[in-house]
Amino acid sequence: MCGVFGVFGHKEAANLTYLGLYALQHRGEESVGIASFNGKQLSYQKGVGLVSDVFDTARLKKLKGYCAVGHNRYSTTGSSVAENIQPIMVNHRKAPVVVAHNGNFTNTYELHRALEKEGAIFHTTMDSELIIHLLAREKSDDLKEKLIRALSQIKGAYSLVMMLGDNLIAARDPRGYRPLCIGKLHNAYVVSSETCALDLIGARYVRDVAPGEIIKINSQGLQSIHTLQSSQHAYCIFEYIYFSRPDSNIFGHNVYQVRKDLGRNLAREFPVQCDFAMPIPDSGNYAAVGFIQEAELPFEWGMIRNHYVGRTFIQPSQITRDFRVKVKLNPISDVLKDKNIVIIEDSIVRGTTSKIRVKTLREAGAKQIHMRVSCPPIRYPCFYGIDFPTKKELVASSKTVEEVGRFIGLDSLCYLSLEGMLATMPHKPCEFCTACFTGNYLEKPKKGVKKNILELLRR
Amino acid sequence: MCGVFGVFGHKEAANLTYLGLYALQHRGEESVGIASFNGKQLSYQKGVGLVSDVFDTARLKKLKGYCAVGHNRYSTTGSSVAENIQPIMVNHRKAPVVVAHNGNFTNTYELHRALEKEGAIFHTTMDSELIIHLLAREKSDDLKEKLIRALSQIKGAYSLVMMLGDNLIAARDPRGYRPLCIGKLHNAYVVSSETCALDLIGARYVRDVAPGEIIKINSQGLQSIHTLQSSQHAYCIFEYIYFSRPDSNIFGHNVYQVRKDLGRNLAREFPVQCDFAMPIPDSGNYAAVGFIQEAELPFEWGMIRNHYVGRTFIQPSQITRDFRVKVKLNPISDVLKDKNIVIIEDSIVRGTTSKIRVKTLREAGAKQIHMRVSCPPIRYPCFYGIDFPTKKELVASSKTVEEVGRFIGLDSLCYLSLEGMLATMPHKPCEFCTACFTGNYLEKPKKGVKKNILELLRR
Amino acid sequence: MCGVFGVFGHKEAANLTYLGLYALQHRGEESVGIASFNGKQLSYQKGVGLVSDVFDTARLKKLKGYCAVGHNRYSTTGSSVAENIQPIMVNHRKAPVVVAHNGNFTNTYELHRALEKEGAIFHTTMDSELIIHLLAREKSDDLKEKLIRALSQIKGAYSLVMMLGDNLIAARDPRGYRPLCIGKLHNAYVVSSETCALDLIGARYVRDVAPGEIIKINSQGLQSIHTLQSSQHAYCIFEYIYFSRPDSNIFGHNVYQVRKDLGRNLAREFPVQCDFAMPIPDSGNYAAVGFIQEAELPFEWGMIRNHYVGRTFIQPSQITRDFRVKVKLNPISDVLKDKNIVIIEDSIVRGTTSKIRVKTLREAGAKQIHMRVSCPPIRYPCFYGIDFPTKKELVASSKTVEEVGRFIGLDSLCYLSLEGMLATMPHKPCEFCTACFTGNYLEKPKKGVKKNILELLRR
Amino acid sequence: MCGVFGVFGHKEAANLTYLGLYALQHRGEESVGIASFNGKQLSYQKGVGLVSDVFDTARLKKLKGYCAVGHNRYSTTGSSVAENIQPIMVNHRKAPVVVAHNGNFTNTYELHRALEKEGAIFHTTMDSELIIHLLAREKSDDLKEKLIRALSQIKGAYSLVMMLGDNLIAARDPRGYRPLCIGKLHNAYVVSSETCALDLIGARYVRDVAPGEIIKINSQGLQSIHTLQSSQHAYCIFEYIYFSRPDSNIFGHNVYQVRKDLGRNLAREFPVQCDFAMPIPDSGNYAAVGFIQEAELPFEWGMIRNHYVGRTFIQPSQITRDFRVKVKLNPISDVLKDKNIVIIEDSIVRGTTSKIRVKTLREAGAKQIHMRVSCPPIRYPCFYGIDFPTKKELVASSKTVEEVGRFIGLDSLCYLSLEGMLATMPHKPCEFCTACFTGNYLEKPKKGVKKNILELLRR
Repeated sequence: MCGVFGVFGHKEAANLTYLGLYALQHRGEESVGIASFNGKQLSYQKGVGLVSDVFDTARLKKLKGYCAVGHNRYSTTGSSVAENIQPIMVNHRKAPVVVAHNGNFTNTYELHRALEKEGAIFHTTMDSELIIHLLAREKSDDLKEKLIRALSQIKGAYSLVMMLGDNLIAARDPRGYRPLCIGKLHNAYVVSSETCALDLIGARYVRDVAPGEIIKINSQGLQSIHTLQSSQHAYCIFEYIYFSRPDSNIFGHNVYQVRKDLGRNLAREFPVQCDFAMPIPDSGNYAAVGFIQEAELPFEWGMIRNHYVGRTFIQPSQITRDFRVKVKLNPISDVLKDKNIVIIEDSIVRGTTSKIRVKTLREAGAKQIHMRVSCPPIRYPCFYGIDFPTKKELVASSKTVEEVGRFIGLDSLCYLSLEGMLATMPHKPCEFCTACFTGNYLEKPKKGVKKNILELLRR
Repeated sequence: MCGVFGVFGHKEAANLTYLGLYALQHRGEESVGIASFNGKQLSYQKGVGLVSDVFDTARLKKLKGYCAVGHNRYSTTGSSVAENIQPIMVNHRKAPVVVAHNGNFTNTYELHRALEKEGAIFHTTMDSELIIHLLAREKSDDLKEKLIRALSQIKGAYSLVMMLGDNLIAARDPRGYRPLCIGKLHNAYVVSSETCALDLIGARYVRDVAPGEIIKINSQGLQSIHTLQSSQHAYCIFEYIYFSRPDSNIFGHNVYQVRKDLGRNLAREFPVQCDFAMPIPDSGNYAAVGFIQEAELPFEWGMIRNHYVGRTFIQPSQITRDFRVKVKLNPISDVLKDKNIVIIEDSIVRGTTSKIRVKTLREAGAKQIHMRVSCPPIRYPCFYGIDFPTKKELVASSKTVEEVGRFIGLDSLCYLSLEGMLATMPHKPCEFCTACFTGNYLEKPKKGVKKNILELLRR
Repeated sequence: MCGVFGVFGHKEAANLTYLGLYALQHRGEESVGIASFNGKQLSYQKGVGLVSDVFDTARLKKLKGYCAVGHNRYSTTGSSVAENIQPIMVNHRKAPVVVAHNGNFTNTYELHRALEKEGAIFHTTMDSELIIHLLAREKSDDLKEKLIRALSQIKGAYSLVMMLGDNLIAARDPRGYRPLCIGKLHNAYVVSSETCALDLIGARYVRDVAPGEIIKINSQGLQSIHTLQSSQHAYCIFEYIYFSRPDSNIFGHNVYQVRKDLGRNLAREFPVQCDFAMPIPDSGNYAAVGFIQEAELPFEWGMIRNHYVGRTFIQPSQITRDFRVKVKLNPISDVLKDKNIVIIEDSIVRGTTSKIRVKTLREAGAKQIHMRVSCPPIRYPCFYGIDFPTKKELVASSKTVEEVGRFIGLDSLCYLSLEGMLATMPHKPCEFCTACFTGNYLEKPKKGVKKNILELLRR
Repeated sequence: MCGVFGVFGHKEAANLTYLGLYALQHRGEESVGIASFNGKQLSYQKGVGLVSDVFDTARLKKLKGYCAVGHNRYSTTGSSVAENIQPIMVNHRKAPVVVAHNGNFTNTYELHRALEKEGAIFHTTMDSELIIHLLAREKSDDLKEKLIRALSQIKGAYSLVMMLGDNLIAARDPRGYRPLCIGKLHNAYVVSSETCALDLIGARYVRDVAPGEIIKINSQGLQSIHTLQSSQHAYCIFEYIYFSRPDSNIFGHNVYQVRKDLGRNLAREFPVQCDFAMPIPDSGNYAAVGFIQEAELPFEWGMIRNHYVGRTFIQPSQITRDFRVKVKLNPISDVLKDKNIVIIEDSIVRGTTSKIRVKTLREAGAKQIHMRVSCPPIRYPCFYGIDFPTKKELVASSKTVEEVGRFIGLDSLCYLSLEGMLATMPHKPCEFCTACFTGNYLEKPKKGVKKNILELLRR
């Protein structure tokens, strides 16, 4: 997963992009980069780590100009971390080409093979690099034509922010898998994965980039230059469930309100008799509010979140017990002792962390422990940008709900139903991609998932 | 403020101390150090920054031995950061002397002057260094006698963890200003500022070090060697209000439960008609639970806390607006729009951050904004270890409650009464130091606060 | 200028390459890189700075395999330092392509323009990158054919060490501007710019790569696969005069012996009456030996070289006088006082350093100061790899010998004649490029020097 | 061994000290520090490594004021590197006390023990720290009295540069083991271990600090405040032989001229029939000039010194052969092949490096190899500051000259005689300490060498 951000027409373009990426940090923690342009010179700063690790005042000062593009990259595997930082940047025929991409293509293998045969040299293992080559091969000097021809060859998910010469380009794939919105700050235009980044810099939300839409922003203003056609939308429902920040509006609606409603529906579907309800902080905090309002259960903090857990934590090598999970949340014995409790969670992926949490709560004295999850069981991998573990590692892919509950060590476990989830959503069911719950993929890559393909292509 | 931690009798002493300091990080973010001893050689690692910044696997590996002492130091002013890292460590007469100190002395000036006249050379501007010199001057070879004579000369607040030769020493001043507890892990003894650090490493809480008590731990086990007498206890009430972690037990009681009760009393004292109640996350989260239970108001998340705010945040230099406060919490317009709300906070110090928060909530659409604070107005500085700003900067020191409310921009502001606060506490009122609220100091330094004194003494 | 080095068939390939580059450090101080291959995986380590700055034990350990290619890069201008480190490395059609290049092409502009039009994307401003693209465009699967076709398109100077799949390739342009030799260490083959690198690792010198020759080394051994034809050799005479190490043999002959002979001829052409002769250490040390033997003058150390001058030297910003030259050599007043001296130098480029040296010697008490230079005046830039300053900055380009002597502040200045220089050489005059002395270029780029071209091409 | 440097009365005091330490780098490569004072505030910068590693523009800028003291420290053993950087600096009774020391005390053990008994706390394992404590214990406010009393208690070798309040103090032990001189630059005074540092900054040499003399420099100018009496001088003769830079004047005379004379006497004492003479560069370069003038042998460079050897050199771990010696000097086969040669060296310590050099020369083809050394065999350790290896490691301590020659692999080996050495010296024999050659110590520590004592005292 990734976060993309761009600014055109502000003398602090790179500083605003830094702030935007800080707000979008949850979309990608592995690496970060910002490219900026002042009409003559392209500046670039990037690094492995969080926005706060990579950027300091000195580096920001080097990023001159009124136009900037930034990118947060999610954790991937392998040795290729440093070379896979985005935005990708090259100079081609004396003009800068900068690409920041959120999503994954599904025809990577076919495109890569064809281009390399013609002599194209690839420097990264990211599908995003294909865009650069597709654009470079187009002989036309017309920007619109070039973009339409290049993007038409790509299948899959992309929310793109690009700099082509003196233009900021925003584009979204025809199905609209990933969010992308436009804001305005004074005379400057801003493009961002989520609205929380607009909020931070004080930009006004204008509208979303429509699925399939290509937008050009330059000194003449904003222009929607084309919309690629598609029969069906496929908004990622997991953005609402888990991925986006609760204070963002995506696909036009507030994420926190959706999560609260999921919690409310969950309480209706699966009521429970308990001493109190508690969230796993902070992931369960939002559904929990809807849950307690509907269930009329007291709310308690049964576990306290350590404020410093975003920081590096060394697991001392000789100590056998793993403290990595425990350091994040500490149960309060005085609260839990001899109580029957229900835990609210937003989702379960591997189930291993939940298992440790439940064990810790039992050790702190909790009697009955029930869990309510505000989405259905996740059973299938994502080919459109969410870095789920492989199918094998998804606990619900091979276990029934009852088995998952036993695995975690619960007295009862209930997941919100698919219908219950879709009923809460602010769009029609057919507009969502729910493949991670149902396995119904609209398009699927021929040869496995992307990262494996490209790593293989290079060996 | 500071956190202290020590281990005796465990082959992973330094690793456990690392974990302990990680859990006590909130007590001091400026610098950190760990000294360890294997019976022959003393190892030492320290640095400026958080525990997670300073320690990595390689540094931890260098800390050998069964005994370790660690310290987290709170932010202070000036250029002296690097030389003022604790624990203080010297070799004296072939034996290691290691001191980790939480608290502040009130007779620093007198002691420093007298010792320097006799030829003592000071290397830091910390009052804690006095202990080293007082111990070195004692000619007796009897450890107990030495400790009693040295500590008897000191006035003020200290919770100490020390290594003297092959002994781990824990000591607490006769009034017991700061917490200090003892735990046990298998055959090892652990000393810690708070119990949350015992929880993390899985140690069993044994008891608190009593006010005035001096404890010696070595291969023969734990021995309480002496208790310095005092007429009156003076537990810091602000540890319950704000400073300690909610999942810790201090002075024998759970902090979260106390805060919840403070919130409950607050709702009783100052009820309010509103659409919903919301905390300022995370500081107000605990009192808010008691408040909503008593007030029977709906609970909402009106602001979302950014998970990455513990990280460095660069305020881009050219941008005039300050994002440092805004980056931490983002209001959700959809929740706040046209609503009357009450905010729950644990305390107000300068008032400047609250002012910005309220402004942000208004911009997000909130109509009426009320605030309820779960302690009385803070009006006086602390001489016993809490790094409050100077009296002038404490917003309540020169303003009435009404004026503070206007300053912050509230429709109404109410503080819990002194009586209401004391009534909630699990100890008798006379056992607390409440000087920051009342100005009633049991002992006061002759010449201003410590840090100024020592900085002056060196110039 | 640059140094290139490669090894095939040794399990310590990267370690040997590290040693080789350490020995070739004088050929390039700006940046360094090593790529190694173990048949499956390509490893790469690089950095800005000297070999000793960039490599440590940890980095060397990461370079696995029996085949390695390394490169030292000379100082160039501009911001492009980090991206212009060699060897250049890409993966193309699942095989590694690694290029290390010494020299400069003269048809860079034409090749770059043509390739970019066809969609090639350039990542550096080095002409060396062209080789990669020329190779990638060749559709043939035959390595020999591919290499001949690609290299035939290039004009100018190149001594190349490359890795193509599981082959180590060595190649030299048809005129043989730059040296390149082959050595053998047990069963392994080594390719190096100079023999001093073979000496260090204990490899036996086998022979030079012939001008125009393409050599393939793999598990089947060494094979000379083709020789590109050329009408005339053009060995760089400046390699003998100044650039190569005195302990190297290049173009088949020892550099120190040539320099000693140049000094001997210099003494014959321009005898001088003096108290003693002294070199400017260390550059003049070698010609000086021949000079004193022929001139029968006493030898003295009039200036002492600071052993630490290779190290960074900060010119304190507020001090107006520049210490950068003075810190290197300190005159000995006791030796120089009231003496008439002759200084031996290998060459004069800008003349500014010599001017400061002479001033320093005068201040230390020298009476008459004569200078004898063991090559003719340098008047023209080099297009084949030596980073001379621009013509304007070459002191002899616009001044007569007498004017240069006055500029430097000498009592007399004499340069060895072109004929005198060529007569000393171990090859026929027609086999050398002497363009920097004569302006007779065999081939010349259409549009200025390379670095300007490529920097322009990107803007 | 160490280098000391101080400036009073120049607004660039710290920058000049940086330059001075750069020139004195050969006296100590382990660590470096500079303290400066502007009348109000003391600034301090220090680090492990060479001057060029530790200081950059930013660090130099932080060193404000008209007075500065700097120190280069020689390599010592153990873990105590970072804490043993000089100058030592403390604040005592509101005034700065800064000490830079070259030499070693011989009554360290007695002083340390007595002071610690009285409660003094030591922070380093350097004998130099004793000075600080001796000064702090003096109750008198009179600077002169304080200095005389403190220094009178010390036995052994010291050349000191100190800052006491607003005074720069220079002092030398009564025997004058180590050099120390005074220079003047405009109105500023400069104190330095050697004159080469005065040369670099353009200061005029004024005179040496006399043995036993204490000098005070402040805004009133320079004043010689006292001279401690001594019966006999003991100038370190090894400073002339090896340690000082050849371009320095020490004890009033030029080092290069002394070394040239040693070479001349060596040729007289031990003539040899050979094809040519060659130095081991650079150590033998100076005696070689005198040797060839007297012996009338041709001079040749048989080995070439690598310019980069001051830099870190990694010995790749898996390669069995050690390249550390070989990387420094490469023999030239064309010069050495079938020749009888004589090597000139300044001294032999362990003999192991010479052994490798001779082996290398043989491999390069040399027939007979003779060696002439311009000082007698070194047989005894130094207690006054030269970090010789232990007696056991000194090759000549247990071997006859003939055995040493065989060990190294020579056809003949001759050392200059003690008489021959002393006859060349510009002072009377009785004024020198020659203990490393003769074992005649004027004063000797009771308990072994210093570094062992203090390391022991701390354990």
